[in-house]
Amino acid sequence: MGTFFLNDFDNMEKFYRAKFINSLSGIKSANLVGTIDKNGQTNLSIASSVVHIGANPALMGLIFRPATVPRHSFENIKDTGWFTLNHVGKSFFKKAHQSSARYEKETSEFDAVGLEDEFIDGISAPFVKNSSLKIGLKLREVIHLGINKTEFVIGEVICVDVSENHIEKDGYIDIESLSTVGVTGLDAYHEIKKPTRLSYAKPGQLIKEI
Amino acid sequence: MGTFFLNDFDNMEKFYRAKFINSLSGIKSANLVGTIDKNGQTNLSIASSVVHIGANPALMGLIFRPATVPRHSFENIKDTGWFTLNHVGKSFFKKAHQSSARYEKETSEFDAVGLEDEFIDGISAPFVKNSSLKIGLKLREVIHLGINKTEFVIGEVICVDVSENHIEKDGYIDIESLSTVGVTGLDAYHEIKKPTRLSYAKPGQLIKEI
Repeated sequence: MGTFFLNDFDNMEKFYRAKFINSLSGIKSANLVGTIDKNGQTNLSIASSVVHIGANPALMGLIFRPATVPRHSFENIKDTGWFTLNHVGKSFFKKAHQSSARYEKETSEFDAVGLEDEFIDGISAPFVKNSSLKIGLKLREVIHLGINKTEFVIGEVICVDVSENHIEKDGYIDIESLSTVGVTGLDAYHEIKKPTRLSYAKPGQLIKEI
Repeated sequence: MGTFFLNDFDNMEKFYRAKFINSLSGIKSANLVGTIDKNGQTNLSIASSVVHIGANPALMGLIFRPATVPRHSFENIKDTGWFTLNHVGKSFFKKAHQSSARYEKETSEFDAVGLEDEFIDGISAPFVKNSSLKIGLKLREVIHLGINKTEFVIGEVICVDVSENHIEKDGYIDIESLSTVGVTGLDAYHEIKKPTRLSYAKPGQLIKEI
């Protein structure tokens, strides 16, 4: 085993360090964030920092980078109060990755990468038509993280668009069957294997596969 | 497609809703959180809400549930200022899941589920010996999320323990080769497939597999 400490991180070249540290969080979901500005210009960006915050109310969060880089998605969310999260499928993960390029504000990444938008009544942000799990969220809170100047955006899930065939009897959504991909590090995309589901854990009771 | 709105969520049975909403965040990394109290009593709990916050300083965050349930790990982190994150491997994911049972504070989940602890000089929290990627973190910030009474804990990565064989030339850590598992929903564990790595995206330039 190699054990790396703070001074080892500090000795790493900038991009090496970024790839190393970004790997630590393991596998993450790949989502496309859909937004629109006040003039109707749509925007799309890929995010791997989506986190579940709670089921009731249904809350999800994600981290935006510091204001030293253009953040059209973040600005649109603050301006309109809405955003969407769209699971990235294996049929379009290269297009999704391309949305991370630094396009000018006048360019819609939908057009630039070749993905079609779609709207759902009541949600003021565009969805990715191709995505097999789409989530419409209303902005609830923006928490500025002074420690590294990132922004933690919390939205409430207002609508979910997913085929009922993928929802199991107990409410679990079979992510593998949706062809959603995962991501590790900054640029590694993974198809998802079938899972093993386990029973609810209680002290002194053996876990079963369910 | 089925489109579900707020009133549909509100009509869902409590556990159905929890499983449905927890599925939305897609695939997540499975980590064991290691802590110790002031009396030397160790504690272990599984977390699927770990998120990358930044590479320099190296920051990671995770969400803890409201104080209406016992949160020994959270209390230990606040008391000692330290915690560890340990990737869950496919050889011990059932033991890791068992750590989510509600054990009394006097019980160390290491003993209860049959995982061995390990210490690294300078880090005041226990690691999981079996884990192939171990991270030692110093508490930097606790943000109380008033919206649903959860706690967002931010730690700085102080050490990383991983075999150098798994680190690629550019700093990327090959998560698949570590046998780390992913999790969807509350109880579905996934082995991870080999990834496709993609080149850095730039406007007007075709993405390549690297």
